Amino acid sequence: MSTIKDIIVEYYRIPLPELVSDAKHGVHTHFEVPIVKVITDDNRVGVGYTYTGGFGGRSVAKLIQIELRNALLGKDPANVEHLWEVMQTAVHYLGHGGLASFAISAVDIALWDLRAKKAGEPLYKLLGGSSNEVFTYGGAIDLSFPLPKLLAHHKKYLDMGLKAIKIKVGQKTLAEDIERVKALREMIGPDTLFMVDANMSWTVEQAIKAAREFLKYDILFLEEPIDPNNYEGHKIIADRTGMAIAAGENLRTPMEFAHLIKYGQIGFPQPDASNVGGITGFMKVAAISHVNNLPVSAHGMQELHVSLLAALPNKGYLEMHSFPIDQYTTRPLVIDKKTGYAIAPEEPGTGVTFDFEKLAPFKEEF
Amino acid sequence: MSTIKDIIVEYYRIPLPELVSDAKHGVHTHFEVPIVKVITDDNRVGVGYTYTGGFGGRSVAKLIQIELRNALLGKDPANVEHLWEVMQTAVHYLGHGGLASFAISAVDIALWDLRAKKAGEPLYKLLGGSSNEVFTYGGAIDLSFPLPKLLAHHKKYLDMGLKAIKIKVGQKTLAEDIERVKALREMIGPDTLFMVDANMSWTVEQAIKAAREFLKYDILFLEEPIDPNNYEGHKIIADRTGMAIAAGENLRTPMEFAHLIKYGQIGFPQPDASNVGGITGFMKVAAISHVNNLPVSAHGMQELHVSLLAALPNKGYLEMHSFPIDQYTTRPLVIDKKTGYAIAPEEPGTGVTFDFEKLAPFKEEF
Ligand SMILES: [Mg+2]
Ligand SMILES: [Mg+2]
Repeated sequence: MSTIKDIIVEYYRIPLPELVSDAKHGVHTHFEVPIVKVITDDNRVGVGYTYTGGFGGRSVAKLIQIELRNALLGKDPANVEHLWEVMQTAVHYLGHGGLASFAISAVDIALWDLRAKKAGEPLYKLLGGSSNEVFTYGGAIDLSFPLPKLLAHHKKYLDMGLKAIKIKVGQKTLAEDIERVKALREMIGPDTLFMVDANMSWTVEQAIKAAREFLKYDILFLEEPIDPNNYEGHKIIADRTGMAIAAGENLRTPMEFAHLIKYGQIGFPQPDASNVGGITGFMKVAAISHVNNLPVSAHGMQELHVSLLAALPNKGYLEMHSFPIDQYTTRPLVIDKKTGYAIAPEEPGTGVTFDFEKLAPFKEEF
Repeated sequence: MSTIKDIIVEYYRIPLPELVSDAKHGVHTHFEVPIVKVITDDNRVGVGYTYTGGFGGRSVAKLIQIELRNALLGKDPANVEHLWEVMQTAVHYLGHGGLASFAISAVDIALWDLRAKKAGEPLYKLLGGSSNEVFTYGGAIDLSFPLPKLLAHHKKYLDMGLKAIKIKVGQKTLAEDIERVKALREMIGPDTLFMVDANMSWTVEQAIKAAREFLKYDILFLEEPIDPNNYEGHKIIADRTGMAIAAGENLRTPMEFAHLIKYGQIGFPQPDASNVGGITGFMKVAAISHVNNLPVSAHGMQELHVSLLAALPNKGYLEMHSFPIDQYTTRPLVIDKKTGYAIAPEEPGTGVTFDFEKLAPFKEEF
């Protein structure tokens, strides 16, 4: 057995190439990437990381550097699922769910990187997957894009070969949202999948009105119409309109997913390994979804989620998110232009290798 | 109108006079107290704070220092309830619930301190209370106390005039728990209220077994038998035994309380202003409890909660917790020896004034 000799945390704050906004979080100017290196006494290194939308990353880094590091030093890194429980217990009173889930996620991903490298397997195979292909859609934080820019942005996804796109909704009036949905549907034609995302900006009643209109444009799902913690609100919207509801990027524990699936009867759970407890947390949500006959569709972090979804019997849709992480890794997301599928990496480990030279200018104290 | 000119955060890490342990969190050696000073442009100062059980306080302090400070600078401190929403939105993606609630709590308490000082009123009167008296029980982190020490500890509470006590349960065997409950009941007699606290250490089935036995000793409530996020588990335990269930110290938002009350049908909600979103969060939980015909019983932070419970139409039981905060404030909790009631302070503000000279040796970087 080897043991964890050290855990090193680095904090990167990266400006976005342009200001983007959604209906809940307002304008984004940066994204933050706390990166964790778990080092073993036999000098192996596993790399993990998490994301934020520009806020709170220093607190995440601090929690890893002190509390999670203290909890894990000297332990066997092979016991990934056990260490997930150790971390959950270490921060339970203070942190269960919420911000602590980002910290646990980063460390958990590093532990999986060690595990997969030791096994000499790519993540999707280690997790039992037989295919490396994942259906992928283009997403963007495009609420403030004028219509021509919105159309041009999503045209690029079609040119890449993608067969599905998603836009933000939640404009000042429903009429504006409908106009944009209509224009997009006309551009993409009837055979491209089309989803919309309201980023929790509505009440249940507003969502019902909007969903009823969107159904006319063959929308696959309405994402985050309301606060995801209002579990039963999701069921009410679906019951009264027939629209399938997607949600999950703002849930922070597998149990929160269990509640949303049970009480909210959503159709498309969307876990994110960067904030639901890493790969271990993501796989728990995948199992809950599977026994409920639901597909798993990931939020963001496409460079890692491609490997997780590829492994699942209930793989759903991979979101190709617009944070430019691909500029800082050695393998930008690979899309098969003919099928529109994303292809999981074949190298041992998570398949996400950072280019630390390119990241260096954005490293800050925390 | 005045505006918020600065927000200063200090971090204190205070050793406990003795090592104490409970069934979930293991041994406690320290508690942490991040303290917040909100300073207005007309040079008024409001002081707020939160607690931890020894872990994660630096991340809390960091979140206040960067994200919450950025969100509040220049705003009118009188708009307390509005600023609560501003803070919730500022950290939503990263933090809603969990660790961020500690940070929001500390700032919110400072804003209420400003409000109450400006009004020239003690908190309980500002909140509409007509009496300053609160029924109080003695609690302790006493799971590892040998029986004679356990009895002596709680005898002290009776000598102070308290008419209710609570002990930890969750020993290696149920027989040991029963032995301790039996010995305590014999010591305190039939007229003293008696509660037990399992700190989430059991399964639903273990809790049912234990509850059935404890009922023989006239236990008022069983606290935190299971993970509080397993909402329906609480209802199952109560349904199958008739034991009233208390919980809440590990919930971090008013909505989580709404779920636990609705799905879990608990009898004794136990919010804590240090971790449920400050006084604003606590009062929301109080309102949810009131419309559900439930009393509010506070967890910890007795020096502040005495004023909040005193104000409530549905006031329940104040827990006198064992962290030695009274050594660092100018007004240790006042107990009326005859009635056993705690008495809310009459000075304007929260009534919690720190002795910064005594705290100074425990100040650390974060
Ligand atoms: Mg979304
Ligand atoms: Mg307790």
